[in-house]
Amino acid sequence: MPLSHPDPASIETLLAFLRFPSISTDPAHKADTAACADWVAARLRGMGLVTTIHPTPGHPIVTARTLYHPGRRTVLIYGHYDVQPADPLELWHHAPFEPHIENGIVTARGATDNKGQILAHILGVEKTLREKGNLPVNLIFLIEGEEEIGSPNLPAFLREHHESLVCDVVAISDTGMIGRGIPTLTYGLRGISCIEITVTGPDKDLHSGIYGGAVANPITELSRLIATLHHPDGRIAIDGFYDDVKPLEDWERGAWSRLPMKDDLLLELTGSPRTFGEPGYSGIERTWARPTAELNGITGGYQGDGSKTVLPSRASAKFSFRLVPGQNPEKIHRLVEDHLRKHCPPTVTLKIDIGHSGAPYAVDPHAGFGKAAQEALRKTFDGAEPALIREGGSIPIVTDGFREILGVDTLLLGLALPDSRCHSPNENFPLENFAAGMALNRHLLEEIAAA
Amino acid sequence: MPLSHPDPASIETLLAFLRFPSISTDPAHKADTAACADWVAARLRGMGLVTTIHPTPGHPIVTARTLYHPGRRTVLIYGHYDVQPADPLELWHHAPFEPHIENGIVTARGATDNKGQILAHILGVEKTLREKGNLPVNLIFLIEGEEEIGSPNLPAFLREHHESLVCDVVAISDTGMIGRGIPTLTYGLRGISCIEITVTGPDKDLHSGIYGGAVANPITELSRLIATLHHPDGRIAIDGFYDDVKPLEDWERGAWSRLPMKDDLLLELTGSPRTFGEPGYSGIERTWARPTAELNGITGGYQGDGSKTVLPSRASAKFSFRLVPGQNPEKIHRLVEDHLRKHCPPTVTLKIDIGHSGAPYAVDPHAGFGKAAQEALRKTFDGAEPALIREGGSIPIVTDGFREILGVDTLLLGLALPDSRCHSPNENFPLENFAAGMALNRHLLEEIAAA
Repeated sequence: MPLSHPDPASIETLLAFLRFPSISTDPAHKADTAACADWVAARLRGMGLVTTIHPTPGHPIVTARTLYHPGRRTVLIYGHYDVQPADPLELWHHAPFEPHIENGIVTARGATDNKGQILAHILGVEKTLREKGNLPVNLIFLIEGEEEIGSPNLPAFLREHHESLVCDVVAISDTGMIGRGIPTLTYGLRGISCIEITVTGPDKDLHSGIYGGAVANPITELSRLIATLHHPDGRIAIDGFYDDVKPLEDWERGAWSRLPMKDDLLLELTGSPRTFGEPGYSGIERTWARPTAELNGITGGYQGDGSKTVLPSRASAKFSFRLVPGQNPEKIHRLVEDHLRKHCPPTVTLKIDIGHSGAPYAVDPHAGFGKAAQEALRKTFDGAEPALIREGGSIPIVTDGFREILGVDTLLLGLALPDSRCHSPNENFPLENFAAGMALNRHLLEEIAAA
Repeated sequence: MPLSHPDPASIETLLAFLRFPSISTDPAHKADTAACADWVAARLRGMGLVTTIHPTPGHPIVTARTLYHPGRRTVLIYGHYDVQPADPLELWHHAPFEPHIENGIVTARGATDNKGQILAHILGVEKTLREKGNLPVNLIFLIEGEEEIGSPNLPAFLREHHESLVCDVVAISDTGMIGRGIPTLTYGLRGISCIEITVTGPDKDLHSGIYGGAVANPITELSRLIATLHHPDGRIAIDGFYDDVKPLEDWERGAWSRLPMKDDLLLELTGSPRTFGEPGYSGIERTWARPTAELNGITGGYQGDGSKTVLPSRASAKFSFRLVPGQNPEKIHRLVEDHLRKHCPPTVTLKIDIGHSGAPYAVDPHAGFGKAAQEALRKTFDGAEPALIREGGSIPIVTDGFREILGVDTLLLGLALPDSRCHSPNENFPLENFAAGMALNRHLLEEIAAA
């Protein structure tokens, strides 16, 4: 596949962007994050876009727009300039904020998620403007600095500015390709509901010799509660949990079964001894189109070296439920809470803390601007037929922000590869995908204009 | 009950003993612990006993003995001069190593466990020697500095010195009284088997959105394994676990049912919402005479604030099984391991680490020197009838050391009260129990001599 290499100036620009340690969750990097926002805004302003840095209670949001042309469609391209923390640092082969290029791949924190991908769109627009003087659409860039901490200030910003953010469609490059050179349109995402529970028995830690056997052990009771969440075969055992799930359509199962993503690849990518999950579904069906009840953390009692014979006062666990189209996060919170209260014995007390949530997303990839997106992908990737997929992760702003507040669908045109290591040490982005992103931007705007 | 107050000199001696921060687990207190051993040895030597400080790979063992008189019985009194760590320091009302006396109670780390109790024996012997010139028995003090870390060097010491430690019986004051003024003879202890298990799924932490639902979650699988350990009613569900358990005797159930230790006291002491345990047994029967499968700690995944949607690579848990007479720790380890391997699904791998263990202990309180001990308690506590109990905790050296190596039984004549807070902040010891311990020493040696 003859994907091109980006020009040296674009590579230098990418490296400059990657050098900002714009870690949004870390207060120590607040100034770095602000400096990164300034850098993005300066770049956009230099291209002739009307650019604004909007302060928020957290990190700033940068917007930039072309002058409005009546009669042209309006496209909003969303991305983020903040990155995940880089730790554990000792697992990086090179310093995470000193980008390193080897074999056509740039390694740095944020290379794929999301600096490489959003910059490809910025430079794609810059190139079109330089060569043609204008774009075939009205364009709005919306680039925030809090995506990695759940976009706490973005919904309020969208509500406040929705009149100036009116658009026909949103485009995001922050998802994945199913393999190198395989253009990929993501038309569905899972939603999420987070819950933390704490089980308390005695009101203080006890000596397990003196009292063990006569009062309930909170770790045991928490474990028994967790064990009630699933049937032995992997199905979730919460009453009503699957009631609203929209079944997979036949065309999806057919198309997905032809993708080069079999369960042996899943084993290779995860290092698990076996696959496991809801019976009757393949690995990608389970992760893309079926809901989960996942444990993210558990803690209780003594956790140091050796043994300490304590009967702990309490134990707690963090859950996240991934939801699929049809399911409602608030209803799931209710069902889960009912289930836990029903199964918790009276020998311990149960505290439930409801965490953040986000609705699932799905759009028909054959309707609306889906065909334009597929054509743009085809042209970018040398005529290759785009894979139509969903993804298991969640981008709540797509439903809760762009669909609910702005009233539009989102095209998810990801450029990450399965081994791009987003959120992990040695995050990387192939320069050919960076170049592809610039080309994709031009084709996408042209196809949307012509649709 | 007219228990006497100790003389001022004895109280001063106790306070001096309590000022040593002889924390055996903390390398920073190695010199303090050695200084405490020196202090104990100097005291014993000053009483005219043949005293030796024996270095070990850890903290020293102090022995002291009267000159041998043929024809007299030999009693070995065991105790320890090391203490538990004092943290959490902020929960102490006074500094843990600056002993504080209020309302006839001394508060300090080690006040009850074991400095107050072993010193009462030392000062009791000193008083008898001062008043009478000699003792009615041959006496050996064996006072170690590693009891709180599992006495790692004591068994080897007993094996090496068993010829010079030949005795007729061991006496220990390191257990509890069931209530103020109620003399108590403990004739049974539970044993212990410790195990840690680790369940591993993927070979690295995964994004729960990307992979959740298609591979097993180690926290879920660990919880399901833990849930298999008990039947819902509280009985342990491990095949063969109860096979060797010696049933409670009728006289024990009868005697215990008349003790002032009902389940409402258990709720008050533990702060648990309800009692819970093996059906058909009272709270004290469950803790004194029935085995347990207790969780001491669990850990896995993200444990910080808020949520992190990780599907963790592994989760682990620490168990301790309290064992009762008839049960063998090695056999229990085998049964537990078989159970866990049988119930662990092939979607994760299971690692089992066998920890330390100790055999249970029981002796007939009506045979051997049991009657002498009861008579000594009666005389000490103004004629009150001693309670005959077992305890739920473990003192492995009683079985693995004194019974197996020296071939003798142990009299457990504890002076701790239920609210003495051993191992907890604000550990304390009533001065009346300190005085009682001195009197008990004299009566005990006399009764053993006469038995």
